[in-house]
Amino acid sequence: MKARNRRHAIASSDALSPKALLAYATGIRADYEKHLRELVEIPTVSADPARAADVARGARAAAALLRRLGVAASVEPTGGHPLVVGHLRSGAGFPTVTLYNHLDVQPAARADGWKTDPFRFTRKGDRYFGRGTTDDKGPALAALHGALAAHRAGVPLNVRFLWETEEEAGSTHFEHAIGRLAPRLATELVVISDGLWVSRDQPTCASGLRGWLGIELSLETGEGDAHSGIVGGLARNPLAELMQLVADLHDARSGRVKVPGFYDDVEPLTRREREEFRRSGFSIANLKAGIGIRKLRTENPREAMRRIWALPTFEVHGVVGGYSGPGSKSIVPGRGQVKASFRLVPSQHPDRVADLVTRFIKKRNPDVVVRRDAGNLPYRADVSGPFAAALRRAMTDAFGKELSFVRDGGSIGAVASMERLLGCPVLFLDLSLPEHGYHAANEYFEWSQASRGIVAFARFFAELAGPEGALAVAKRPERKRS
Amino acid sequence: MKARNRRHAIASSDALSPKALLAYATGIRADYEKHLRELVEIPTVSADPARAADVARGARAAAALLRRLGVAASVEPTGGHPLVVGHLRSGAGFPTVTLYNHLDVQPAARADGWKTDPFRFTRKGDRYFGRGTTDDKGPALAALHGALAAHRAGVPLNVRFLWETEEEAGSTHFEHAIGRLAPRLATELVVISDGLWVSRDQPTCASGLRGWLGIELSLETGEGDAHSGIVGGLARNPLAELMQLVADLHDARSGRVKVPGFYDDVEPLTRREREEFRRSGFSIANLKAGIGIRKLRTENPREAMRRIWALPTFEVHGVVGGYSGPGSKSIVPGRGQVKASFRLVPSQHPDRVADLVTRFIKKRNPDVVVRRDAGNLPYRADVSGPFAAALRRAMTDAFGKELSFVRDGGSIGAVASMERLLGCPVLFLDLSLPEHGYHAANEYFEWSQASRGIVAFARFFAELAGPEGALAVAKRPERKRS
Repeated sequence: MKARNRRHAIASSDALSPKALLAYATGIRADYEKHLRELVEIPTVSADPARAADVARGARAAAALLRRLGVAASVEPTGGHPLVVGHLRSGAGFPTVTLYNHLDVQPAARADGWKTDPFRFTRKGDRYFGRGTTDDKGPALAALHGALAAHRAGVPLNVRFLWETEEEAGSTHFEHAIGRLAPRLATELVVISDGLWVSRDQPTCASGLRGWLGIELSLETGEGDAHSGIVGGLARNPLAELMQLVADLHDARSGRVKVPGFYDDVEPLTRREREEFRRSGFSIANLKAGIGIRKLRTENPREAMRRIWALPTFEVHGVVGGYSGPGSKSIVPGRGQVKASFRLVPSQHPDRVADLVTRFIKKRNPDVVVRRDAGNLPYRADVSGPFAAALRRAMTDAFGKELSFVRDGGSIGAVASMERLLGCPVLFLDLSLPEHGYHAANEYFEWSQASRGIVAFARFFAELAGPEGALAVAKRPERKRS
Repeated sequence: MKARNRRHAIASSDALSPKALLAYATGIRADYEKHLRELVEIPTVSADPARAADVARGARAAAALLRRLGVAASVEPTGGHPLVVGHLRSGAGFPTVTLYNHLDVQPAARADGWKTDPFRFTRKGDRYFGRGTTDDKGPALAALHGALAAHRAGVPLNVRFLWETEEEAGSTHFEHAIGRLAPRLATELVVISDGLWVSRDQPTCASGLRGWLGIELSLETGEGDAHSGIVGGLARNPLAELMQLVADLHDARSGRVKVPGFYDDVEPLTRREREEFRRSGFSIANLKAGIGIRKLRTENPREAMRRIWALPTFEVHGVVGGYSGPGSKSIVPGRGQVKASFRLVPSQHPDRVADLVTRFIKKRNPDVVVRRDAGNLPYRADVSGPFAAALRRAMTDAFGKELSFVRDGGSIGAVASMERLLGCPVLFLDLSLPEHGYHAANEYFEWSQASRGIVAFARFFAELAGPEGALAVAKRPERKRS
């Protein structure tokens, strides 16, 4: 564990001190803002087919920007929106780290409550308004400039950039494209910068993601809707039976899943994880206000964090069938469908959960048709290894406060894809703040997060590289730790 | 009970024998068809605002027809579609019986599968095709010509006609109009002819209706939908909680309502009712084929009839909230609503049921908002009294097979309104057959039901009228029956 406790030669060089790096960032601020303006003003709304040409233009502009800054870059077709691949080469024998960001954005319109044009970059003091500033164009550029800073200071590391343009539309073609390109993408580590801190006052990075299993439960008992005055009481009601099944599957008040075996593979939080959660800055009041949510299953913050980050769920998303228009319609529906999903945590597997749940349902109501999607595996980073230690030191150096590893309750298929196809660990270096308005109107990013983000990335690369860096340490045969 | 066992003077007069009446009906067949053509070819679709002028024209045409046949008639405004009121006067001192029918129809278009123009009267042999032929213009005209036959044969009875034109649009203005007109509408009995037999082979009339209580259960836990990756497991899910509540309220597989006290006021079927049900011609196979229904809660016909005619229900009609579009959307919905209803049987009261259910719900989930509608009382005719006996004899005379009283599992608010506002019993004299296609494409009525319907109405009036008729018998102080 020596490497975690002292700074090696590269990491402690003057040019890579937090102070020098912050000065570097200040020096290139005008460039950073110019680059961000350039990317934000191309409306790369990937979910809108009418914007496909803009998305392609955004990818070309990003590749051109990379090239201007000395990074070899290409725009790779995927079958969907393209992928920008960049390579900042420092030396042929150096290890490679990959930075993942995405350049596509959520839809935005003035009518949604924007005070400025969402596709104009608008600087107000230290804040940068515009769609995509915080999700994820601003962090992408912080990572890029952090890599350039490290490169210029002589950090012996190659950096590859994977800039997706289909993330907000489900990353449908990403896994296939990565699979195809994998021979060209060999890397030691993937770093994703596409997440939020829990609170402005406490640097946090996600150390895990929940997995996902989407299911649809369908039941058909008639050719169409029937008049409840004619058959009510005799005809089976598919909506009511599906509701009963949902009540059998879980207790809606507590959220507890009642399928036997469902929790068998859930790994408990370690003491260290629980401690890090505690100093994450999580607050029930902030969450409620931020999400616009009134009623929670618990008001205890520790239990709340456990529920959203470290426990699996069953969630009902919606219902199809019957009458949902104004007023009433006295029908017995002919068919019904419940759209639902499970979020999974390490080391649950979507296939095993799907089997358990399908068997459970078939035993109770054999006529119900269960359809599942492919699902995503949950992901948990090794937060006690050398990479996590390097990340912890880099973030602490950059932001002046010790990093807490938390988790992300969401599911990102691309993470497990990259881990599997590139055969390397994945870590998150998160820079956005809850108040930045992810997916909301008046989204913004801010210079303090951008500049300290540049410092964090450069410091992280410094901690990783060189003969005593984390990448080298990780490759050594494991020694007994004392 | 003597009056029930022998034919009194009027009822047994030659001109009113079933044979003479059938000959009378045959004699006026061309008129009947002409009148039916006249009414069917006016598209009185009350639910379609664009057809309001046609509905008004239909009402005027019906009043004009009544006048041509010697019936005093007026078109009464209701605030909605009008009401046609007719009065066939036989003598100032005679009792009055009221015939209720409706002249408005369901929508119809060639595209729905009609082989003929739905608003052209098309005779094919003994069958009369066109929208409204069986529901309810054909039965209305059978009732009218039955009344005229009785009148011409000297039956000492006045007959009033209430022809609604808003029945298919919910009878929204009917109760208020009847209340306003009540002083002019004094009557001993209301006869409704707007129902179906259970099978062509067995004459049946409804002797009861289920009541109704519509409810909406709403739960709001957030300002909008939230991302289940961010709050899933912590945020309450209003759809899931409503589903659990529905499962608490009733067992969806058996239909049994689990609210304590719900069945307290349910009157069991009498032995006589059970016997009449048994010879009603009910068949599980016919019901399934007729309604297009695949799965029933029971395949036992006796239990099936009990369920649709004599037991209350809880029925889920639909759900609002969450995501019901194609694919999936990983949200925790902010709000949800379940649209449902109870069908009630004698002597349940919608207010008492609403109280029981609301208390039950509030105890389980105090945040759920329960909204109820006004509800309808269930209705049960006295099938052992003199009016029912007269109806039974009249139907048996007309159709040559003993009438069975069954029930109708539907709810008609107008029935309880007329019973209450006009202060008299209500009976059903049903003429339509299941194969006539109520509310369906290629609706038809047929001469054998029309002509025997004329006979049935005339015989019923003969049984009711005169010093020994059922109306007189019913007015006598009750005597001990042996």
